[in-house]
Amino acid sequence: MDCRLVLREHGEPVRFHIRGVEVNGDKPLIIAGPCSVESREMIIETAMAIKRILVDELGFTNVVLRGGAWKPRTSPYSFQGHGARALEWLREAGDKTGLPVATEVLDPRDVGTAAEYVDAIWVGARNMQNTPLLRELAKAGKPVLLKRHFGATINEWLCSAEYLLAGGLEEVALIERGTRGINEYARFTLDITVVPIIREVSRLPIIVDVSHPAGRRSLVPPLAKAALAAGAHGVMIEVHPSPDKALSDAKQQLSFDMFEKLARELRGAGLI
Amino acid sequence: MDCRLVLREHGEPVRFHIRGVEVNGDKPLIIAGPCSVESREMIIETAMAIKRILVDELGFTNVVLRGGAWKPRTSPYSFQGHGARALEWLREAGDKTGLPVATEVLDPRDVGTAAEYVDAIWVGARNMQNTPLLRELAKAGKPVLLKRHFGATINEWLCSAEYLLAGGLEEVALIERGTRGINEYARFTLDITVVPIIREVSRLPIIVDVSHPAGRRSLVPPLAKAALAAGAHGVMIEVHPSPDKALSDAKQQLSFDMFEKLARELRGAGLI
Amino acid sequence: MDCRLVLREHGEPVRFHIRGVEVNGDKPLIIAGPCSVESREMIIETAMAIKRILVDELGFTNVVLRGGAWKPRTSPYSFQGHGARALEWLREAGDKTGLPVATEVLDPRDVGTAAEYVDAIWVGARNMQNTPLLRELAKAGKPVLLKRHFGATINEWLCSAEYLLAGGLEEVALIERGTRGINEYARFTLDITVVPIIREVSRLPIIVDVSHPAGRRSLVPPLAKAALAAGAHGVMIEVHPSPDKALSDAKQQLSFDMFEKLARELRGAGLI
Amino acid sequence: MDCRLVLREHGEPVRFHIRGVEVNGDKPLIIAGPCSVESREMIIETAMAIKRILVDELGFTNVVLRGGAWKPRTSPYSFQGHGARALEWLREAGDKTGLPVATEVLDPRDVGTAAEYVDAIWVGARNMQNTPLLRELAKAGKPVLLKRHFGATINEWLCSAEYLLAGGLEEVALIERGTRGINEYARFTLDITVVPIIREVSRLPIIVDVSHPAGRRSLVPPLAKAALAAGAHGVMIEVHPSPDKALSDAKQQLSFDMFEKLARELRGAGLI
Repeated sequence: MDCRLVLREHGEPVRFHIRGVEVNGDKPLIIAGPCSVESREMIIETAMAIKRILVDELGFTNVVLRGGAWKPRTSPYSFQGHGARALEWLREAGDKTGLPVATEVLDPRDVGTAAEYVDAIWVGARNMQNTPLLRELAKAGKPVLLKRHFGATINEWLCSAEYLLAGGLEEVALIERGTRGINEYARFTLDITVVPIIREVSRLPIIVDVSHPAGRRSLVPPLAKAALAAGAHGVMIEVHPSPDKALSDAKQQLSFDMFEKLARELRGAGLI
Repeated sequence: MDCRLVLREHGEPVRFHIRGVEVNGDKPLIIAGPCSVESREMIIETAMAIKRILVDELGFTNVVLRGGAWKPRTSPYSFQGHGARALEWLREAGDKTGLPVATEVLDPRDVGTAAEYVDAIWVGARNMQNTPLLRELAKAGKPVLLKRHFGATINEWLCSAEYLLAGGLEEVALIERGTRGINEYARFTLDITVVPIIREVSRLPIIVDVSHPAGRRSLVPPLAKAALAAGAHGVMIEVHPSPDKALSDAKQQLSFDMFEKLARELRGAGLI
Repeated sequence: MDCRLVLREHGEPVRFHIRGVEVNGDKPLIIAGPCSVESREMIIETAMAIKRILVDELGFTNVVLRGGAWKPRTSPYSFQGHGARALEWLREAGDKTGLPVATEVLDPRDVGTAAEYVDAIWVGARNMQNTPLLRELAKAGKPVLLKRHFGATINEWLCSAEYLLAGGLEEVALIERGTRGINEYARFTLDITVVPIIREVSRLPIIVDVSHPAGRRSLVPPLAKAALAAGAHGVMIEVHPSPDKALSDAKQQLSFDMFEKLARELRGAGLI
Repeated sequence: MDCRLVLREHGEPVRFHIRGVEVNGDKPLIIAGPCSVESREMIIETAMAIKRILVDELGFTNVVLRGGAWKPRTSPYSFQGHGARALEWLREAGDKTGLPVATEVLDPRDVGTAAEYVDAIWVGARNMQNTPLLRELAKAGKPVLLKRHFGATINEWLCSAEYLLAGGLEEVALIERGTRGINEYARFTLDITVVPIIREVSRLPIIVDVSHPAGRRSLVPPLAKAALAAGAHGVMIEVHPSPDKALSDAKQQLSFDMFEKLARELRGAGLI
């Protein structure tokens, strides 16, 4: 593999901050929030619930608020996100709660706008090899969380990250979110082995999105525990005020109650 | 599936022309040319060889010249294509030989430029779900050939095509180019079953890129025969003046001699 | 790979006969018959139909009659085959029509019985790495057709064949029958690339079972054409007097009419 | 699915004992030992080390000693196990240490012999759908641990277990050991989602073999933690006195020191 900047042998593990929240520090990261920012009210409500549960009640501050503004939907008839408007709401929710915020960008022409509003940007699985987008993100200078495509090898994933590093961006983390497998009861097959593998092979932090492989909410808590127990630098979890009414990913988002229960269990197990 | 415009039950099979060359007509299509347009001379030389072999010698005129200008490479250090300059050369090669020309576009901002120069645009596997790109292509009005991602289901692929049809573009064909499989001797596992499946399920023509699944040139001729025998509306084949010296996909491109031999065999078998 | 007897570099391509029918000779092989031998009458009826269509009408004699006696079913509640009794009926059907006969064996304790009745034995995908069975078959001396497991690599498959060759059996052919893939419209993903790959890499003939990857009968004819066009040494096709009433694989077996139509098309295309 | 005895809705979760060691009780199970029983001395040495580390030092008694007597090897030239002789040594090692012992059976004709010597029998991935073997095991009456084939769906796996339950054997547990995936740094893709899925869907306990998906020993400890954190009823771990000299699976077996370190970490994390 000629992608070298991402490799462990190339240098020290990459550590960075998302508006004061450390990635690859002493504690893992919890990135939580709704699949999509559906309205100003819902994202503020969700942010406040997450802050209450993690920061106020558990004293856990390594938290980032996620919320999708542009959604990469399989069907053109599905909800595609509220776009730039959602970013304003997301920013407001972050400011109200003190949580840093992150969103997904699909279109290289939206990178600048996103960078004005959010503290980190993630690249969805479907855009892992969208090289014009990666180049634009390298220039924008915001931390980037790069999801693995569900059909991509590890080297392909690392080489996509190399586009960011080669473009001058050091603040990069990887997100595993499940690969296409033969398990007919889950949405994707979470490849848990990548957690120790990335830790061995790469300088980049490895985070696990536990909602997308689950596909249904009952699987999310055990997968979150597994990911952190395996050594992940963080987990991404979808949380929604009324999951059943969500405009996207309705089956896999946690309610506030479920999220609180999970957070307490993670704390009880010494995982956060 | 809520993607309906692509379905066979929605209407008649889609037929269209790429600068006079019929797609889904009486004869299959051969899309041939180099992986990348490496120079003005090489694309003209290749175009003339293809024209000589197919049009002049075999009287087969259902031909499109392919050539990559922007290349979606796994590594940022690999040759990324000559960009817009390559489109001029490709256009010149097309004009000199009378062959319509096609190229790949990765960036929604390049769609307009590409549409000025070429007669058809293909979307590479890695961009199958790049929805901003698909929307831009729907507006540009050029015929689009949509490759299946190597990790995508058929419904995901059809839904990506639906973005084009729902955006007002009717001139759309599908290209199978191999899925990620467990065959350690091929680059990808060519999913030959999609040929009859797409013919049953969808209105869109189905073309098979036989070079990418092969990964090495000796496999290309048998896969081309299999694809056409299975009923594909066309095949896409990489051809290069000096394959071993190619800047990309060196192992899988055919020399002119191999391409001529294959073309004669296809003719002999009644497949073109 | 330390499995060497199967490799092309080790020696001449393997050629053998199944009761006078040549495998890897000038003409491909057609192995046809029902999934299961359901009764004496049905196997005789099927054998006579196959003989009429291929031998009498088309003059094509490279034919083997297949019929399952022991069936490896996913569920214990599905029809498991009539066992040894079915072998008598199969033998009778073969004798009445002059067609050699083949069956599947699952249990090493049944190899001897099977070898008394049939002219060739196939190993189903699920038993590809059943090494006690392979060792028993090597000793029995009957030609063996070894199916690839739907989750097996090519080297694993070749090494299973090596158990037969290393055990002293030279009359071995390989059968590709589809791998587990991401195609939700087919039962399995037929890996057509193995046809030229096995021809390059191995001494063993390569046959394609086109019924199992199809999963539904409309896909069988195009896959049969693709397999033979790609260079397969034969095809295996399930044929049943009343497919919809079949005790196993009801959706993928061809009726006599469909089989006759396919046979005529294969002849018309010069493929048999 | 017509396999019902295995389903959670059919009855209470299955609990049983392997010579006094409870499966699906308050504590998880650790099944440890070498890939193959290579000699009398090595299995006794390994058994004593496992007993010392888990029972004597940590007071953890939910332990089973594993050791392969018949090995299902990809190549016929690899070490195939010492057969029945190895069972005597394994039994002796169990008796000396008080640990129950388990081995793998491949051949239905060996079930009786194995049942004389061991306390539990596992079915390897490659034999998951070896129905004659499953039927023989159902009659033998020993607890059976059924590994999932690396290419099998969950329903196929559950239906294989149904062969055991339908045959009258209630003492059955499932073992996940990794599926064929696209991760080029691991031997198999451990499907961690099956742990909560089997707990939801099935009555049967779910154990995770963490050595086979790892393929190299550095990945084993994080996978063991992940499996137990996800809720597995046990883990299977390969341990060898001198892993680099092992006759099989040399890269993935843990030394006694590594195993001791892992055991202490599992205890420290409250996972055992």
